[in-house]
Amino acid sequence: MKNRPTISDPYTDPNTYPPGVAFLDDQYVPVGAAKISVLDNGFLHSDATYDVVHVWQGAFFRLDLHLDRFFQGMDKLHMSIPYEKPQVTEILHNCVAVSGLKNAYVEFICTRGTSPTFSRDPRDAVNRFIAFAIPFASVASPEQMDRGLHVAITDVVRIPPLSVDPTIKNYHWLDLVQGLYQAYERGAETAILLDTNGNIAEGPGFNIFMVKDGTVLTPDYGVLMGITRQTIFELCQSLQINCSAQGISPLELGAADEVFITSTAGGVMPVTNLNGKAIAAGQVGSLTRRIKDHYWRLHEQQTDRSVVDYGHASGL
Amino acid sequence: MKNRPTISDPYTDPNTYPPGVAFLDDQYVPVGAAKISVLDNGFLHSDATYDVVHVWQGAFFRLDLHLDRFFQGMDKLHMSIPYEKPQVTEILHNCVAVSGLKNAYVEFICTRGTSPTFSRDPRDAVNRFIAFAIPFASVASPEQMDRGLHVAITDVVRIPPLSVDPTIKNYHWLDLVQGLYQAYERGAETAILLDTNGNIAEGPGFNIFMVKDGTVLTPDYGVLMGITRQTIFELCQSLQINCSAQGISPLELGAADEVFITSTAGGVMPVTNLNGKAIAAGQVGSLTRRIKDHYWRLHEQQTDRSVVDYGHASGL
Repeated sequence: MKNRPTISDPYTDPNTYPPGVAFLDDQYVPVGAAKISVLDNGFLHSDATYDVVHVWQGAFFRLDLHLDRFFQGMDKLHMSIPYEKPQVTEILHNCVAVSGLKNAYVEFICTRGTSPTFSRDPRDAVNRFIAFAIPFASVASPEQMDRGLHVAITDVVRIPPLSVDPTIKNYHWLDLVQGLYQAYERGAETAILLDTNGNIAEGPGFNIFMVKDGTVLTPDYGVLMGITRQTIFELCQSLQINCSAQGISPLELGAADEVFITSTAGGVMPVTNLNGKAIAAGQVGSLTRRIKDHYWRLHEQQTDRSVVDYGHASGL
Repeated sequence: MKNRPTISDPYTDPNTYPPGVAFLDDQYVPVGAAKISVLDNGFLHSDATYDVVHVWQGAFFRLDLHLDRFFQGMDKLHMSIPYEKPQVTEILHNCVAVSGLKNAYVEFICTRGTSPTFSRDPRDAVNRFIAFAIPFASVASPEQMDRGLHVAITDVVRIPPLSVDPTIKNYHWLDLVQGLYQAYERGAETAILLDTNGNIAEGPGFNIFMVKDGTVLTPDYGVLMGITRQTIFELCQSLQINCSAQGISPLELGAADEVFITSTAGGVMPVTNLNGKAIAAGQVGSLTRRIKDHYWRLHEQQTDRSVVDYGHASGL
């Protein structure tokens, strides 16, 4: 007969985690203690929606837009949580205040959860809400922000809207990850995926923009309706720059005067090399720079800010 | 100034979990204690592959095939774990033996994990291996096994191979879950999704088969290469029943003599109603019954069994 192992009680977690604070099951915990069961359908079926908002210099940026999208995503997935928007707002403020982080990346998630009877029927599951604040993250490093990202257009097709509604922010990223590995193999730093029409779609965590003859263009189909993307539209309007969403072929992108990507994780980030070839002169474009500067200036507007009161937060 | 909450230490988990044993970080724990960080890319990007094998009457069924598929999936995703197949086999046997479960559903998972430096580059992440054994689960309830499942063909398109390689068993299920809700709205119990050609693909956790004029047919494109599906091919060959994989339209499925679905979670399960209409006479088909009986008889063959030595297992 074989000797079998014994149960480890308690289990010891050997992994390291960043600083930050999370909320789950009505408790605030260090982010490293924020874990979900391997049986949660948010993991086992990636049956979840989420949103990410950033805190910059002690204030949330456009939090209401992120909350609206999150609650719409839950509706579309037939999910519900025992909190309304004001309560979620309070929870997110608490995570940031207790973490003490002045620049933070704040993610809030609803998973399908598990069923108390272990049924496979998603209608029986108790949905779970989780939130966490960690240090601000960016798709581009400071060096890449400075000289522009090097990007490859891959032949991976972004999961199409007929399969998964891209207006529901979701964790279905295997296509994006495979695109990343293709990009790395070609010496690029990140990837652009195609849509089912062969046009460009989006990359891992970002929307794509190009500038041609003074007009700003971005794909209109099969992409996340990014809040930063929306902010660029509004910003261009206020700056009287033409901006429109339409199909963009890889060839058109290659002939752009300027290219940049947008994400809550980093804002407006220049791209200067596409498929190993310099875009225009291979320098960060002047319109890209202007839009980026205005994007960060928007962070000072009272209408878009939700200031965190760090108060008597006990910290970690 | 606001009063902020304090950190809960330790965190108390209010959720309930089924019996079973899990393995992670070189430790065996009750399955309710098996959790992954919310920062693990296996959750945040569904960047993971997995497999499920079942244990029936104290023996694994066709474990080697599941292990082969799992290791191939990891290769395709550029993942690696510090265990070879014999070690994974030992871990799975341990989970089952310690759980004491004679009929079990055994899942093993590789997630991208997290990067020790919190980099966004998947190449920097330390991949994680997790396994667990819980009581045997079935897509169909005993009543549904008896009278046949009621299924609806939805208009949701299964995530296509151009986006995510279906030969990598993955957790991208939002399309399947949306299909399920469509099916529920139409009074059905589970869903069939389409492929990008408008043919039928698969359902949530199962492959689809039909019988027409004594021939067994199943879709050939955009579907998981199920081990149970493969077992049906082999079983039909040994029984001298014609069996082939080819495109099947919804109309063709509706005109079938018999329909059944296959999954590790339940084996061979009859379907007797499609889109609210009885299939043929609305009874479990005779060939379905014969294939199902042979499927379970295969579980007694020494070549397909890997017997668990429950030995001196301490249990829970």
